[in-house]
Amino acid sequence: MSLPILAPEDRPLAGLKVLDFAQFLAGPAAALRLADLGATVIKIERPKGGDLCRGLVINDQKLDDSSLLFHTFNRGKQSVAADLKNPADLAAVKRLVAEADVMIHNFRPGVMDRIGLDIETVRAVNPGIVYGHVTGYGNDGPWRDKPGQDLLAQSLSGMCWLQGDRAQGPVPVGFALLDIATGNNLVQGILSMLVRRGVSGQGGLVEVDLMSSAMDLQFEQLTAFFNDDTLPSRTEISNANVYGAAPYGIYATADGWLALAMVPLAVLADLLDCPALNDFAQPEAFGRRDEIKPIIAAALKTRPTQAWLDVLEPADVWCAEVLDWARLSRTEGFAALSPLMTMRTADGREARTTRCPIRLDGGLLTSGVGAPALGAHTSQHIDKADAV
Amino acid sequence: MSLPILAPEDRPLAGLKVLDFAQFLAGPAAALRLADLGATVIKIERPKGGDLCRGLVINDQKLDDSSLLFHTFNRGKQSVAADLKNPADLAAVKRLVAEADVMIHNFRPGVMDRIGLDIETVRAVNPGIVYGHVTGYGNDGPWRDKPGQDLLAQSLSGMCWLQGDRAQGPVPVGFALLDIATGNNLVQGILSMLVRRGVSGQGGLVEVDLMSSAMDLQFEQLTAFFNDDTLPSRTEISNANVYGAAPYGIYATADGWLALAMVPLAVLADLLDCPALNDFAQPEAFGRRDEIKPIIAAALKTRPTQAWLDVLEPADVWCAEVLDWARLSRTEGFAALSPLMTMRTADGREARTTRCPIRLDGGLLTSGVGAPALGAHTSQHIDKADAV
Repeated sequence: MSLPILAPEDRPLAGLKVLDFAQFLAGPAAALRLADLGATVIKIERPKGGDLCRGLVINDQKLDDSSLLFHTFNRGKQSVAADLKNPADLAAVKRLVAEADVMIHNFRPGVMDRIGLDIETVRAVNPGIVYGHVTGYGNDGPWRDKPGQDLLAQSLSGMCWLQGDRAQGPVPVGFALLDIATGNNLVQGILSMLVRRGVSGQGGLVEVDLMSSAMDLQFEQLTAFFNDDTLPSRTEISNANVYGAAPYGIYATADGWLALAMVPLAVLADLLDCPALNDFAQPEAFGRRDEIKPIIAAALKTRPTQAWLDVLEPADVWCAEVLDWARLSRTEGFAALSPLMTMRTADGREARTTRCPIRLDGGLLTSGVGAPALGAHTSQHIDKADAV
Repeated sequence: MSLPILAPEDRPLAGLKVLDFAQFLAGPAAALRLADLGATVIKIERPKGGDLCRGLVINDQKLDDSSLLFHTFNRGKQSVAADLKNPADLAAVKRLVAEADVMIHNFRPGVMDRIGLDIETVRAVNPGIVYGHVTGYGNDGPWRDKPGQDLLAQSLSGMCWLQGDRAQGPVPVGFALLDIATGNNLVQGILSMLVRRGVSGQGGLVEVDLMSSAMDLQFEQLTAFFNDDTLPSRTEISNANVYGAAPYGIYATADGWLALAMVPLAVLADLLDCPALNDFAQPEAFGRRDEIKPIIAAALKTRPTQAWLDVLEPADVWCAEVLDWARLSRTEGFAALSPLMTMRTADGREARTTRCPIRLDGGLLTSGVGAPALGAHTSQHIDKADAV
């Protein structure tokens, strides 16, 4: 069974033009989403080296001259090479800005003012443009010049005390979550302003930052904390939410791992054949979770995962096996979602990557186009006469 | 310094009406964002008990009859109580649907077909509606009936092997990340379709699911994995990204914790006064990370965090202290972002929560309105004659 694909011309942002001045992850992630939704996205890159992400190689993987990571975040875009310090290049870029629907950048506060591509100047020539700006910690305040990097922002945000168990030090989320979340927030702001523009004709300014996005991701927990003011702690074992009642967490079985979400203690006592759990009333499942979790852990350790699933799933207990990518990718559940696609560079190299997670009108928003070579579309968008 | 607030009438979705049939977290999180962006959001709830989230109490915190958690996800919305199995209620709800701009639900596949609120039926009376559907694992495939719960989907997604260190079992992200990410994806799909509707007049269908959203969050890592096919492992200590080169991670100091992002080994050798790091060439920072990280850890353990910051920050090393919420909330950097606001219920109870992380036209999207009492707006939206 293969799922249908939404044709490029039916995608909701077909015909819109986005200029992506951003480097690294958050801004380019936002522009990637806009490209999957149908927009034409043009990266404006420095002629020497381009987006610094081109050289950020992880796991020793490159696709062409650029890192696989760069392709992951920039597939399906075009590239214009322009030196914003060169007057002719800058004039050509300003002509692109004058006819763009959206522009995105993540320059430090003040840089675009010096270049003459700040919101006021841009709006004067293009009142309909939606102008997106990504920062680490906002444009004001004492943290404005701190490096806007994912792990560092996670560390400042308090988020690293939510993973792992009590005896551990802080445990960060193991991927660039704040870059992705900030990119998602930028997309939402931009799209909402495009909705408004459809009514009023006016564009606007969208600002997002890693730290506000980190607060938003923790909004459930921060709301609990700021109305309680007691710093919560992770459970001794099987922590999965500092405010979660037992059994919420992941437990070892005889041969693997099992996750349990919200399950009444009496149900577990019965199904795990664990009468000791009956010593706890259900309202104690939060306050006495450090006593309860070890009892559940001891019970689950006695049998293999599949044996427990065979007992728990028919009883509609909220549980799941814990998979790694290798096992996940062999499941039919994974295949049914068609989560993978192949991207190709202009010179024919291929790599597998994940698709956009949104389905529209029943169709997937897949694309087979890799990231552009640096400046591959310069001549298409900048008339040579411009560069005189 | 207090930041300006964008007036309700200037918000980009002002005048749009959203019907939120969803329960628990992902769908209501999406509708919350639409409310912050200016839409009027009406929850359609069962007359008995309403959204199940009203009774989901975490940290023993309630605000009124409903949990603080419910208020966190449903502030600023209205509530209509309607029994979709009652013909008169259903007829009244269908009249609301006929004039809505957006509807969102997270019913299991097939439920809305039986009720007569599936996309085809709704589109026939309201061709401009944008129809959002949230599932755990899509509408097809063998996982369609699995419980769509955050921790369980995290466990199946492979994500739990990204946090923590190598000797540990799987470590989940400690908050409902997939609910939030799926909600964010839903918002993006809905807004993109509203942009398209502004051009064509036609609405459309938006489908998102927890598992595709989990794949998307891991897209950097999954792209590396699916072009390599070797399952990566977490580092022995200080893991922060299975594909990250040393020093990427969090380290203990003499009195706390310090995060280091991308830093050349030679720079660290010098600044940490740690010549042993000079035994490693920079290209070995990934492949030999398990040898390098312990050397860095031993060095950092010798002095307090502030002493290291005083050395590293002036050298522009990408580093940060690791804060908890209590310390974060006392910083000027936190205050400068104005991340908190107070929500009030109709009967005057108050709670602090976080604001929307997006700034538009320089203004914050704050709101002081708490979640509605069950059915508080029924009479406003459903004529009594309807219920005969």
